[in-house]
Amino acid sequence: MRDVRMRGFAERADVEDVERLLERIAQPLPAESVPVLECAGRVLAADVFAAVDVPGFARAAMDGYALRGEETFGASPYNRLSFELCGEALPGRPFPERLGSGQAVRIMTGAPVPEGADAVVMAEFCEELDGRVLVSEAVGPQKNVGAVGEDIRRGDAVLRGGRWLRPQDAGLLASMGCAEVPCVRRPRVRLVITGDELLPAGSLPEGYRIVDSNSVMLRALVARDGAELLSFEVLPDDPEEIRAALECEGADVVLVSGGSSVGQEDHAPRLVAELGSLDVHGVAMRPSSPAGFGRIGERLIFLLPGNPVSCLCAYEFFAGPTLRALGGRSRRWPHRRVRVPLAHKIVSVIGRTDYVRVAIDGGRAVPIATSGASILSSTVRASGAVIVPRGLEGMPEGTEVEVLLYDDEINVGDVS
Amino acid sequence: MRDVRMRGFAERADVEDVERLLERIAQPLPAESVPVLECAGRVLAADVFAAVDVPGFARAAMDGYALRGEETFGASPYNRLSFELCGEALPGRPFPERLGSGQAVRIMTGAPVPEGADAVVMAEFCEELDGRVLVSEAVGPQKNVGAVGEDIRRGDAVLRGGRWLRPQDAGLLASMGCAEVPCVRRPRVRLVITGDELLPAGSLPEGYRIVDSNSVMLRALVARDGAELLSFEVLPDDPEEIRAALECEGADVVLVSGGSSVGQEDHAPRLVAELGSLDVHGVAMRPSSPAGFGRIGERLIFLLPGNPVSCLCAYEFFAGPTLRALGGRSRRWPHRRVRVPLAHKIVSVIGRTDYVRVAIDGGRAVPIATSGASILSSTVRASGAVIVPRGLEGMPEGTEVEVLLYDDEINVGDVS
Repeated sequence: MRDVRMRGFAERADVEDVERLLERIAQPLPAESVPVLECAGRVLAADVFAAVDVPGFARAAMDGYALRGEETFGASPYNRLSFELCGEALPGRPFPERLGSGQAVRIMTGAPVPEGADAVVMAEFCEELDGRVLVSEAVGPQKNVGAVGEDIRRGDAVLRGGRWLRPQDAGLLASMGCAEVPCVRRPRVRLVITGDELLPAGSLPEGYRIVDSNSVMLRALVARDGAELLSFEVLPDDPEEIRAALECEGADVVLVSGGSSVGQEDHAPRLVAELGSLDVHGVAMRPSSPAGFGRIGERLIFLLPGNPVSCLCAYEFFAGPTLRALGGRSRRWPHRRVRVPLAHKIVSVIGRTDYVRVAIDGGRAVPIATSGASILSSTVRASGAVIVPRGLEGMPEGTEVEVLLYDDEINVGDVS
Repeated sequence: MRDVRMRGFAERADVEDVERLLERIAQPLPAESVPVLECAGRVLAADVFAAVDVPGFARAAMDGYALRGEETFGASPYNRLSFELCGEALPGRPFPERLGSGQAVRIMTGAPVPEGADAVVMAEFCEELDGRVLVSEAVGPQKNVGAVGEDIRRGDAVLRGGRWLRPQDAGLLASMGCAEVPCVRRPRVRLVITGDELLPAGSLPEGYRIVDSNSVMLRALVARDGAELLSFEVLPDDPEEIRAALECEGADVVLVSGGSSVGQEDHAPRLVAELGSLDVHGVAMRPSSPAGFGRIGERLIFLLPGNPVSCLCAYEFFAGPTLRALGGRSRRWPHRRVRVPLAHKIVSVIGRTDYVRVAIDGGRAVPIATSGASILSSTVRASGAVIVPRGLEGMPEGTEVEVLLYDDEINVGDVS
């Protein structure tokens, strides 16, 4: 293990190689049981089969009157047919007898259709009069009746493992009587924020001390990617404290912000190599070239540069896809995308992957010129980012580029 | 107030009229103070101005050596220039003296650039030897130095009110020393789930009783739309219990699921009219025609049909946009969208708005035929929904339609 502190990187890894390594390593975590009320937005860990028919009984699909459909044939507004009204059926409170010929039962949507009846006439086409009901519409058998199992048949594979559970999926699982749902466990993330100069978020900057902003940003990104954040604190640049944080059990992923580069106070890379393996340190990209990745036991350790834009960029390229993959989701960047032409050229270098912030203005992507990775406000002014792959030495004005939009809320005109 | 119970709707409102009414009524809620660590994903209630410069001091943008840039002119790998190494500057631990001519200070990224120095040479281009440092690259003044206020200038309007706060926005606010952020208050939502036949989610269906699935679905939708769900329970079809739930203080919005139609147990519309105003009851749409909307004091009441698909549809058309607008977000449906041709025709009726579930198969939208609004599994099998506006009596095969996708996770090939 070469100590790069104050020497610089001899060689930087390609972004694609790091991505391939992470894709191979990050497999969905084991299943855990989640209450059905909380399963929406989680990823199903196994196929779910229906244990019951839904509905379990023939039910009215409309408010109206249950009767024998064939007995309504010929009914019309000009020829109302009369039935004996012999009771009612409500959801959860069925009509207790068998319906005879010439009889009808008042019935509400969702109520069990009484034995002997096979159709429901909508209330709009009926009038009650002296214990009878006058029907002005003909309905065939099964009309306005929901059959047993019409929604779900017992034994059906209702949802497949790996599925991201929609709100309605969660509803469906509840309707089938599921109390607990097997979901891919959410990855647990520990933030290790290091820097003698850092004050905790919520402080005022003071003299030469600055306020930690990366934890605030990372906390939101980790939540976006479906992971669970463990409690954390800001650590000084003290190898022993950083070592203890890296060794601490309980996290699937550790995000180290700061102290990851080649400065003499950059202890994290050396400690990761000592405690486990440092698979990557230094990546051919801009910003975030000091990013790194390693493993301590089963724990995946991401070294994110302390500069806020680098931190964001390294998170998006490496940590975000990994967290999503661990949680059973797609590795794909979750941003909404829009394709627009470049307002002016982007300069890059062959062999390096660039993460360029752009504003969308007049339907074109305007690269935001900044002097460095510490300019968090550039990611605030930008509409999103354009990635310049390592095979290109830049992109000329007018190139149609895909912008990864920063906003979840739609603020741009023509975006899907 | 006409009692529509067991009579049907005399007249149904147009979807667009209801949308216009809601757009007029639902304005952003007042501001509340949110800790900066939790503000990402919230909507800013007022402009935020910077109270400080960020950074507040000139800082190193790289690990290396701080010196006078002009003294490096002529340095190259073949002509290394030598400087006296007279100390170091670390983030939060500045070099305490003024740098003289021919001197250099070892400096880490983020550390204050010492007085007298104006540039930083990257560590990669320097070598330390016997208390001196040999420099092999020329740097101009300001090179690798971040100026005071380069990220944010004191007094700048950094973020505008109404903005959805990105992860990096939250970071920026923290770096400026914000402890609390003024955000639009999240709407508070009470679910009123009614039905004698309903068992709470997590139960097994039993005889003629079915399991409440709407609360499970609504809970996830309400969370998606940035609202806060108050605790709730399933109520029987008892007017007094429903009245008490409608009158209960504390919620901005009440979602009533079930008991909203024209059946005799459908008490909610009458109670809303009695306690406040019932602005809408019955909408020219399919499904969800019994949907309604009313007001009790400041509380907005949405009557969602009990049938799960109708409940979903009425929520998406009316409640969802309203919750988002109350929270300061866009009324626009939050679904990702894709444009594809219809695999076969959709039949509708002029004057009625239809919400048609479709599967995307082979790059085409296949309408899912179902017999009714109670078929929740249709929204599970579907990829999304197509809206047929009321001016059309349908859409022929091959029409290019916009599909509102159900999945947040991308499961469809070519989707942005």
